[in-house]
Amino acid sequence: MKLLVLLGPNLNMVGIREKSIYGIENANTINEAIKTYAKSAGFECDIFQSNHEGDLIDKIHSSLGVYDGIVLNAGALTHYSYALRDAIASVEAVPTIEVHMSNVHKREEFRHKSVISPVCSGVICGFGKDSYRLAIEALKGLI
Amino acid sequence: MKLLVLLGPNLNMVGIREKSIYGIENANTINEAIKTYAKSAGFECDIFQSNHEGDLIDKIHSSLGVYDGIVLNAGALTHYSYALRDAIASVEAVPTIEVHMSNVHKREEFRHKSVISPVCSGVICGFGKDSYRLAIEALKGLI
Amino acid sequence: MKLLVLLGPNLNMVGIREKSIYGIENANTINEAIKTYAKSAGFECDIFQSNHEGDLIDKIHSSLGVYDGIVLNAGALTHYSYALRDAIASVEAVPTIEVHMSNVHKREEFRHKSVISPVCSGVICGFGKDSYRLAIEALKGLI
Amino acid sequence: MKLLVLLGPNLNMVGIREKSIYGIENANTINEAIKTYAKSAGFECDIFQSNHEGDLIDKIHSSLGVYDGIVLNAGALTHYSYALRDAIASVEAVPTIEVHMSNVHKREEFRHKSVISPVCSGVICGFGKDSYRLAIEALKGLI
Amino acid sequence: MKLLVLLGPNLNMVGIREKSIYGIENANTINEAIKTYAKSAGFECDIFQSNHEGDLIDKIHSSLGVYDGIVLNAGALTHYSYALRDAIASVEAVPTIEVHMSNVHKREEFRHKSVISPVCSGVICGFGKDSYRLAIEALKGLI
Amino acid sequence: MKLLVLLGPNLNMVGIREKSIYGIENANTINEAIKTYAKSAGFECDIFQSNHEGDLIDKIHSSLGVYDGIVLNAGALTHYSYALRDAIASVEAVPTIEVHMSNVHKREEFRHKSVISPVCSGVICGFGKDSYRLAIEALKGLI
Amino acid sequence: MKLLVLLGPNLNMVGIREKSIYGIENANTINEAIKTYAKSAGFECDIFQSNHEGDLIDKIHSSLGVYDGIVLNAGALTHYSYALRDAIASVEAVPTIEVHMSNVHKREEFRHKSVISPVCSGVICGFGKDSYRLAIEALKGLI
Amino acid sequence: MKLLVLLGPNLNMVGIREKSIYGIENANTINEAIKTYAKSAGFECDIFQSNHEGDLIDKIHSSLGVYDGIVLNAGALTHYSYALRDAIASVEAVPTIEVHMSNVHKREEFRHKSVISPVCSGVICGFGKDSYRLAIEALKGLI
Amino acid sequence: MKLLVLLGPNLNMVGIREKSIYGIENANTINEAIKTYAKSAGFECDIFQSNHEGDLIDKIHSSLGVYDGIVLNAGALTHYSYALRDAIASVEAVPTIEVHMSNVHKREEFRHKSVISPVCSGVICGFGKDSYRLAIEALKGLI
Amino acid sequence: MKLLVLLGPNLNMVGIREKSIYGIENANTINEAIKTYAKSAGFECDIFQSNHEGDLIDKIHSSLGVYDGIVLNAGALTHYSYALRDAIASVEAVPTIEVHMSNVHKREEFRHKSVISPVCSGVICGFGKDSYRLAIEALKGLI
Amino acid sequence: MKLLVLLGPNLNMVGIREKSIYGIENANTINEAIKTYAKSAGFECDIFQSNHEGDLIDKIHSSLGVYDGIVLNAGALTHYSYALRDAIASVEAVPTIEVHMSNVHKREEFRHKSVISPVCSGVICGFGKDSYRLAIEALKGLI
Amino acid sequence: MKLLVLLGPNLNMVGIREKSIYGIENANTINEAIKTYAKSAGFECDIFQSNHEGDLIDKIHSSLGVYDGIVLNAGALTHYSYALRDAIASVEAVPTIEVHMSNVHKREEFRHKSVISPVCSGVICGFGKDSYRLAIEALKGLI
Repeated sequence: MKLLVLLGPNLNMVGIREKSIYGIENANTINEAIKTYAKSAGFECDIFQSNHEGDLIDKIHSSLGVYDGIVLNAGALTHYSYALRDAIASVEAVPTIEVHMSNVHKREEFRHKSVISPVCSGVICGFGKDSYRLAIEALKGLI
Repeated sequence: MKLLVLLGPNLNMVGIREKSIYGIENANTINEAIKTYAKSAGFECDIFQSNHEGDLIDKIHSSLGVYDGIVLNAGALTHYSYALRDAIASVEAVPTIEVHMSNVHKREEFRHKSVISPVCSGVICGFGKDSYRLAIEALKGLI
Repeated sequence: MKLLVLLGPNLNMVGIREKSIYGIENANTINEAIKTYAKSAGFECDIFQSNHEGDLIDKIHSSLGVYDGIVLNAGALTHYSYALRDAIASVEAVPTIEVHMSNVHKREEFRHKSVISPVCSGVICGFGKDSYRLAIEALKGLI
Repeated sequence: MKLLVLLGPNLNMVGIREKSIYGIENANTINEAIKTYAKSAGFECDIFQSNHEGDLIDKIHSSLGVYDGIVLNAGALTHYSYALRDAIASVEAVPTIEVHMSNVHKREEFRHKSVISPVCSGVICGFGKDSYRLAIEALKGLI
Repeated sequence: MKLLVLLGPNLNMVGIREKSIYGIENANTINEAIKTYAKSAGFECDIFQSNHEGDLIDKIHSSLGVYDGIVLNAGALTHYSYALRDAIASVEAVPTIEVHMSNVHKREEFRHKSVISPVCSGVICGFGKDSYRLAIEALKGLI
Repeated sequence: MKLLVLLGPNLNMVGIREKSIYGIENANTINEAIKTYAKSAGFECDIFQSNHEGDLIDKIHSSLGVYDGIVLNAGALTHYSYALRDAIASVEAVPTIEVHMSNVHKREEFRHKSVISPVCSGVICGFGKDSYRLAIEALKGLI
Repeated sequence: MKLLVLLGPNLNMVGIREKSIYGIENANTINEAIKTYAKSAGFECDIFQSNHEGDLIDKIHSSLGVYDGIVLNAGALTHYSYALRDAIASVEAVPTIEVHMSNVHKREEFRHKSVISPVCSGVICGFGKDSYRLAIEALKGLI
Repeated sequence: MKLLVLLGPNLNMVGIREKSIYGIENANTINEAIKTYAKSAGFECDIFQSNHEGDLIDKIHSSLGVYDGIVLNAGALTHYSYALRDAIASVEAVPTIEVHMSNVHKREEFRHKSVISPVCSGVICGFGKDSYRLAIEALKGLI
Repeated sequence: MKLLVLLGPNLNMVGIREKSIYGIENANTINEAIKTYAKSAGFECDIFQSNHEGDLIDKIHSSLGVYDGIVLNAGALTHYSYALRDAIASVEAVPTIEVHMSNVHKREEFRHKSVISPVCSGVICGFGKDSYRLAIEALKGLI
Repeated sequence: MKLLVLLGPNLNMVGIREKSIYGIENANTINEAIKTYAKSAGFECDIFQSNHEGDLIDKIHSSLGVYDGIVLNAGALTHYSYALRDAIASVEAVPTIEVHMSNVHKREEFRHKSVISPVCSGVICGFGKDSYRLAIEALKGLI
Repeated sequence: MKLLVLLGPNLNMVGIREKSIYGIENANTINEAIKTYAKSAGFECDIFQSNHEGDLIDKIHSSLGVYDGIVLNAGALTHYSYALRDAIASVEAVPTIEVHMSNVHKREEFRHKSVISPVCSGVICGFGKDSYRLAIEALKGLI
Repeated sequence: MKLLVLLGPNLNMVGIREKSIYGIENANTINEAIKTYAKSAGFECDIFQSNHEGDLIDKIHSSLGVYDGIVLNAGALTHYSYALRDAIASVEAVPTIEVHMSNVHKREEFRHKSVISPVCSGVICGFGKDSYRLAIEALKGLI
């Protein structure tokens, strides 16, 4: 089983950016943790981070026939990128799980709306780094 | 470690009600599954279902000093019960995780807004019965 | 044929409360009239009034396999109780008719929106006590 | 006692138009049924259908002193014709009952708002052809 | 100088309809008054009342080259008839004055918005029958 | 008969300000015209202009028992001064007519809403300087 | 193949009305062009213009079994006539194409919303007279 | 004179819950204070707290002919319980005063709207425990 | 202890203005009552009424170091004067209590929103003249 | 004459993605068809597809002096990319036609609003692959 | 060159009021700094502060022919004073620059909207006292 | 001291695009001017323009520890790019100033809202090329 973990804009800055929200662990440490979770859940795992909406869309398209599922933290694109939404919908054979490290509902109003939730299988948010582990578990359950 | 699983209005009707959304497993089967999940995660587990907002609030109040965490599927109260929200906030020492079996963002507009999310630790939705397992895992991670 | 007439919050106060809107007949008199209507339409009829959302939901659940239809005046719960809405949807084999004695569209703005209409078979409002008779007639037509 | 049944735009197409909503009975069959209902309720009955807002308004005006009540299915004019609303209000001595065959609250958002409800005696919707029978019964109760 | 006084839906019912708002003078008496006003202001005057949006539009179109100005009380069409608005705009060489007998701003919310005001020369409302006299005076001033 | 013409903020700048909207006649010339109109309509007339909401309110209060009516062009206060609205309502024995020189409905969105219209007798707008003459005529008709 | 070109309110005034938007060609010239387009596309073509919503609805109803498609420029009715919308929906066997000569999205806010688009096959706007030619081509493609 | 002090959801948790908002005094201490205030104002006083909307409504109904007034802190039900609102309206012979310990206008947006204010005699908020004393004083003034 | 009672626009007209809302006691009588309340509560008391927003702001500024608290009935400025709001915030050492004689929530929609509540200590409304007495009591409690 | 056909995010997935909406023809087949259409209309034609907003903007900028017109299907960027809108406006010498294969008005609410329509020459939607042919025809008419 | 620096409500309280937002320098110190900035930029400079909307408007009117530009910090009037807006528009020969010391977009929602921005030359906000220096520099650039 | 000037989509087209808004100077000329401003203010200065949201985000991330401040004209991304907002927030040690050449508040409604203002130090708009000079001055003041 192969898993794509897709990370959107500014998630490379975790650990540097807004530590009170995201904690002090940096992106590398978190990526290592994700790989460990994936492995123990029986997934081969690729992690791809980009600050470019277009790169994320390209990657999603290329997942068809390659990955068994996607764990997606789309960062702020979550709130306005209908193009990303259409990309997810275009590969509906590949289940996608929406993830957020912070509980977005405790934060600014604009973060309460996700334009991608309706085309994802499910949503997990608020558990920090552990959100990724839970999403991998969830994906395993789905497949 | 002790865990309270709290189920709101109409969740006793799962398996009977709207099977295309909730599946065909009935409430008892799901409760059994929840107990199994809890046990294997090292929790003693009480499950309490009620169609009465007041009963749910009373139960939440009584969790202080008794339970280490709450897994809450508030049913439709999710969308308007500010009283339930205040109850959760009143026991902030007891972490609460919001759960939905269906992906509420794929359904009617009114289900897209949760008045309790901002006072919960995190949210998990869309994985059917498995949402409970993931929430128990998440709680374990939090404690 | 068996019929459940379900009356929500404050309908026990009819005849006492806001007489310019609801008239001077009290709840007992109206209940008697309902029973008479039901009988002449060939229904056995139970009337259940409660000011508790949870009780109404419990009662709706218990109608499965017992009643052939429900005539429901949900009082002010009409305007916000999504839990009641889900209860009605959970027993879709039992047709439910929404009833109001007053023409709610002549009253305050908040009464113009019903969250239960989309899950009921039909709506009848504005005919005072006679709204119940018409709903019973309508139910007979449906069954 | 004399009754005017007034049918608005596109109701001549019932049985042809959107059969999944309106059923397969055509306008003539329904008109026959209405006449039968009216007769058995003790009303002389005129039925007038028009796709012209102005014709409906003219007809309502002319009901003063001629008809004892109006049963009105205004079709889509229900949702925007304030001129029709004013026409109903201008003959307030003639009670008017708003009728819809379908449960408009189950359909598109724009059909949830009626601009004529506040000037009608009451509203009946969702019972197909039977909505007319119930409205005639209701009118009889009012007079 | 020639003047067209155009009266929309339900204005034939003035004196019959909602007397507390429109007074007890009937349409004929008011028409006579309008003619007197027009004459003393030096206008030949035609009065045209219709409950049909289309008739009013046709009449407005035919005013080009025939009338020096229009005094228009569009009744409830004021609030939604963009077709009437376009008709007025299409004869911009003929100045049009919007008139209401009642002060629409004291009445229902929906009467507070006029879709035709932006294409009229000016607006006069709230002076009963006298609104017409003032509009005729205003038109004289404009020409 | 005594008349108060009350002019709000920036109306002293007419003829200087935004000439394409208000024309080139300055405030003095317009005031002279107003006096002439008033005289020929049989009114003694005082004109009071202020850029201070409080002064306008004081003046309105002092009109009780002194003036038979008020012609009010409240300038931009029209759109937000609920205090001015209450002042007008507090002297309801003195009829007040709302006037605007420009057709406010052809201008910015915020000018389409008047918070004072519901407490005035009527509204006249769009006729330039002539709006005042019409308002004086209207007031004469009211008294 | 037979084609109905249906033109709504004020389209008879094209060439006279708002020339900066609609150009200087008058309705007759445009009708001639439409006929030529239709002919060269292999359609017999009837053109029907009316300022009456009801006439347009009647015409749409009568198209069943007579015309192979409708090209509809509904004028300002586009923005509020739900009755017209229902008429189009009632003849769904006859494909209807919504046409506007101007690009309505460059104009007033109220013209940005079409209540008929969801029941038409497609929409073409902004190409002046040529919009009709394109619609006829499009219809040909559909049939 | 007899007084009913009615306390809604979560008010049993005062002193435990959100101390920065509600202070550290617990529910018992506050109840004692309320009794003292009532006594010194000459009232016999019953205090009733419940987390159940239905219980509060039942209690309000039962106040008719028993209590001279109600002091009501409805907790979060304030913001959505139209059923509670109707209950208060149904006993209009018993004046009801709305009370909040915190200044709800300094808190979350949803707390700024009260659905019960329009049917209460008056509102007092922001004075902590002292809000109850003031309400009792106010009630005394009313009776 | 020194107290400033600050009264906004149109409160000089109480007893003259809208008696059904404000009662028949005039401003002088009410001021006398306020003084008596203040005295018996142990306050020296200055009362300042103005129809000028600027004067009220100046007075609030000058209260620093002079008064121990402010009782403020801002009249209609309550609903839009953000400048007044900032003035109150600028003297936060001086507690300010918002007062209304009428229950503003029973009146027009625009009176339901107060822009000053979030910067006041608390709010008291609906008790007529007695609102001032309660506010003085409340202030005493705060100090 | 040279033509640029610009295709936005996810249009490379046509034929794979959401076939019930876009049909089964894949992107290559459609591109071939577009080239054929263009050729027969006398255009040299370049087709450029990208999932990157920035690439589309760069391409639009480079069209100045190179292409005689643009046919643009912006995919989901249509609904939020104001940057794309500004790009189109920045090359106003190059007419741009907005195209959609599906009738966006039959789909989700968010697809009903286009932020680019006001800066395009015209809009064509709902005719599948044929939308491109019509746009090319339209462009030919414009040039 | 002459410059008018105009300061609105509560700006006399800077250094006293909300120090966490405005800093600890008081109004006098800031005025001195403004004068220094102005001088070194080659402007004669008058500073005028008032808490009265009317005084600010009067001052703006009097700037015509006297000052070469205005630097305006309108305080909270920024958010609702359309009268101030019209005053600025009435002296359009005198360029006006809108200034705020704090970054208003980081504060309450109501401060995010300025009704005067559309009639000012430009806006500078967020740089504390330095905002005035920048505005003076900007004005110099404009003249 | 090192300064990054970051220019968003379409700013490469200045001087070509919409000259009535942006003037006739092209991007190169403006860049030269910016460099001169920066130099005379004592900054080393890099200018980076991109039409790609992702490139701008990457550049902002790379500014940490390299630049002392950022001057950012985000073009139309200003109005919707929450990803850009998060990028700015992620480097909060580097002060960022939002700049616009035009006064965006005089333009289309959608340009009135900036999603990045709340995370920038301050905003400067409306002074053409000079906006950059002022921003550099402002930055100097901040550091």
